[in-house]
Amino acid sequence: MLLLDRLPERPGTGVCVVRTVDALGRVVATDIPATESLPAFPRSTMDGYSVRASDTFGASDGLPAWFTLVGEVPMGRGPEVSLGVGEAAAAYTGGMLAGNADAVVMVEYTQTIDDRTIEVMRPVAPGENVAQPGEDVRAHETVLSVGHVVRPQDIGGLLALGMESVEVARRPRVGILSMGDEVIPPSSTPGPGQVRDVNTYTVAGQVTAAGGTAVPLGLVGDDYEEQLVAARRGLARSDMLVLSAGSSVSARDRTVDIVAELGEPGPLVHGLALRPGKPAIVGLCDGKPVIGLPGNPVSAMVVSSLLVRPAVYRLMGCVHPPPPTDRAAILAQDIPSVPGREDYVPVRLADNGNGAVNAHPVWGKSGFIFTLVRADGLVKVPADAGGIYAGEPVQVREL
Amino acid sequence: MLLLDRLPERPGTGVCVVRTVDALGRVVATDIPATESLPAFPRSTMDGYSVRASDTFGASDGLPAWFTLVGEVPMGRGPEVSLGVGEAAAAYTGGMLAGNADAVVMVEYTQTIDDRTIEVMRPVAPGENVAQPGEDVRAHETVLSVGHVVRPQDIGGLLALGMESVEVARRPRVGILSMGDEVIPPSSTPGPGQVRDVNTYTVAGQVTAAGGTAVPLGLVGDDYEEQLVAARRGLARSDMLVLSAGSSVSARDRTVDIVAELGEPGPLVHGLALRPGKPAIVGLCDGKPVIGLPGNPVSAMVVSSLLVRPAVYRLMGCVHPPPPTDRAAILAQDIPSVPGREDYVPVRLADNGNGAVNAHPVWGKSGFIFTLVRADGLVKVPADAGGIYAGEPVQVREL
Repeated sequence: MLLLDRLPERPGTGVCVVRTVDALGRVVATDIPATESLPAFPRSTMDGYSVRASDTFGASDGLPAWFTLVGEVPMGRGPEVSLGVGEAAAAYTGGMLAGNADAVVMVEYTQTIDDRTIEVMRPVAPGENVAQPGEDVRAHETVLSVGHVVRPQDIGGLLALGMESVEVARRPRVGILSMGDEVIPPSSTPGPGQVRDVNTYTVAGQVTAAGGTAVPLGLVGDDYEEQLVAARRGLARSDMLVLSAGSSVSARDRTVDIVAELGEPGPLVHGLALRPGKPAIVGLCDGKPVIGLPGNPVSAMVVSSLLVRPAVYRLMGCVHPPPPTDRAAILAQDIPSVPGREDYVPVRLADNGNGAVNAHPVWGKSGFIFTLVRADGLVKVPADAGGIYAGEPVQVREL
Repeated sequence: MLLLDRLPERPGTGVCVVRTVDALGRVVATDIPATESLPAFPRSTMDGYSVRASDTFGASDGLPAWFTLVGEVPMGRGPEVSLGVGEAAAAYTGGMLAGNADAVVMVEYTQTIDDRTIEVMRPVAPGENVAQPGEDVRAHETVLSVGHVVRPQDIGGLLALGMESVEVARRPRVGILSMGDEVIPPSSTPGPGQVRDVNTYTVAGQVTAAGGTAVPLGLVGDDYEEQLVAARRGLARSDMLVLSAGSSVSARDRTVDIVAELGEPGPLVHGLALRPGKPAIVGLCDGKPVIGLPGNPVSAMVVSSLLVRPAVYRLMGCVHPPPPTDRAAILAQDIPSVPGREDYVPVRLADNGNGAVNAHPVWGKSGFIFTLVRADGLVKVPADAGGIYAGEPVQVREL
């Protein structure tokens, strides 16, 4: 995307240090090297007996090798016993080996003769059933790279290394300004011709889900100068600005003028070859992304999912964001489309009783928000297709 | 799953009221009816002119209908003009119609003759280009059902109705107790044979991601009585308990005894037909789920993703949790398996240069945590398969 190509590949919004246990979903701000090797010691991977492998050579069911039991290495302790020829010590999964031992015989291949004696029925090679130091991770190896989104296992890995804090990208502040004489706050009761603001909050939800901080900038009417002042002020306190335009043609045209006045180079793209969302504006104003959304709530959400989410991740230095959830389904009804333009059609999913899932288009006039509330996701009709027929497989993208 | 079937289908952990703007990811606790109809008024879906449809009948390019322009209905205002025969008023997308108007003519099909006169080149039917009251949502219709996980569009829908707060399931508290003489806190420096606790934090991350509140209960060694006391105390202050067992066979056997002592009926399942994760325990103790995880970090995470996540959602009354992210890929290397058991194999994803994604198995001995850090997800080998061959399509489940 033209906008992303012009944003830096490293965190553009600064870094901060958080506790590792609180880092879920945050974006790593620097390459992180392992501070030590793991395991830190040769570790048994089985319950059994640590032995000198050479003492087991030739052992078989018919001719077992006899070992003298000289003790055990308890969990969480160093070896207090050391093996001589023909000696063994009890070993536990995850525990250390006895001194001089270089392998572990699984308990399944042994037989207890008396308190001090076991038979071993199979030979082991040196290192068998033993995890070697550094086999999990080696000191100085990069364990997480800049731009990586932290998952539960990454938290586990960092804490296994004793790294209790981690440097992550600061959450980008995304200002959201809704414009239009007809738009009122959700707390108000609409008079004739008025509607409550929706776009501020759907976009805020998407920003939050992507790891940004949504900064609702309030509402402004259709007066151009007031819009410009509010947009300027909003951009100054944000890392990125989203403008939800009024829905009339003239209101949309004014939005592009605002983007042009906010900074250089201003609008990069005016109008996208997609439906809904054609009137969208993509801009870059003195290094900050500015996105102009159509006022209609469905268009606004579709465009925001395509533009705002990747931009938020990119501002955190994440070039490859986690993919949105896609679900395979069978289209239940023809979707007509016009080639040359991507179409995004809301669909509802329902089990079809044959172990597969049907995707039923949710047709809604004029971008009603409840079209999306009733939908489970979007089906994309590619720009080069004239539609998709009922019965064809589709991927349904969570919105 | 046996456990889920024994949990109630409604929120089991109580409800709370949150601001709608803060409800992202929360689970709706009751069916929510619409408090009013939307749109609240007949709304133009186009820029153009509101008219009485009957005045346009028969209009064509060759014989346009003439209309007298009697004003406009500005955005966000009620109609101050009313139409007589042959009269029209400017209408804007999202705005109201003039009094007596029942349709909107798109501006594209009109021609301005002078300040007070337009030509209309096409007829419109009554209701054309008009969204009717209640067409988006009708008062009393259920807009969100109990168990639904709130998405950005749901926040938008509730606020469009002026509903600024919403009743959601309280976050279940999931106590996590790690056991084993060898396990030390991440803040400590391991002595010989010791390892830092990982499972508490990987499970906590999964609990958090599912919408629960992770309650780390600390560490306890291999003493059975101490384990039982810690487990009892932890269960008392939690809605669900996760026990990470020591990794030796005897430690695992003791865990099932603990689950049996914690409440009725106790263990439901001991041992799952999957790898890694075979020694897992699923229990229900006086109405609270208790899950026993293998001590090995890979097994623990795999089992937790299969058991803990759905149980957390179910405790919130969510019977159909959002599906985990699956990505389609081509397996790059054979995965051998044993029929009769599900295998979960960590894989790393890489573009194969042909527009598809290859899944490379990450082989790791003995459940090293960095196996999962290096992996992008898991490939499941079904219980009835003897493995998957390189080149076959697979679904990679995010972990």
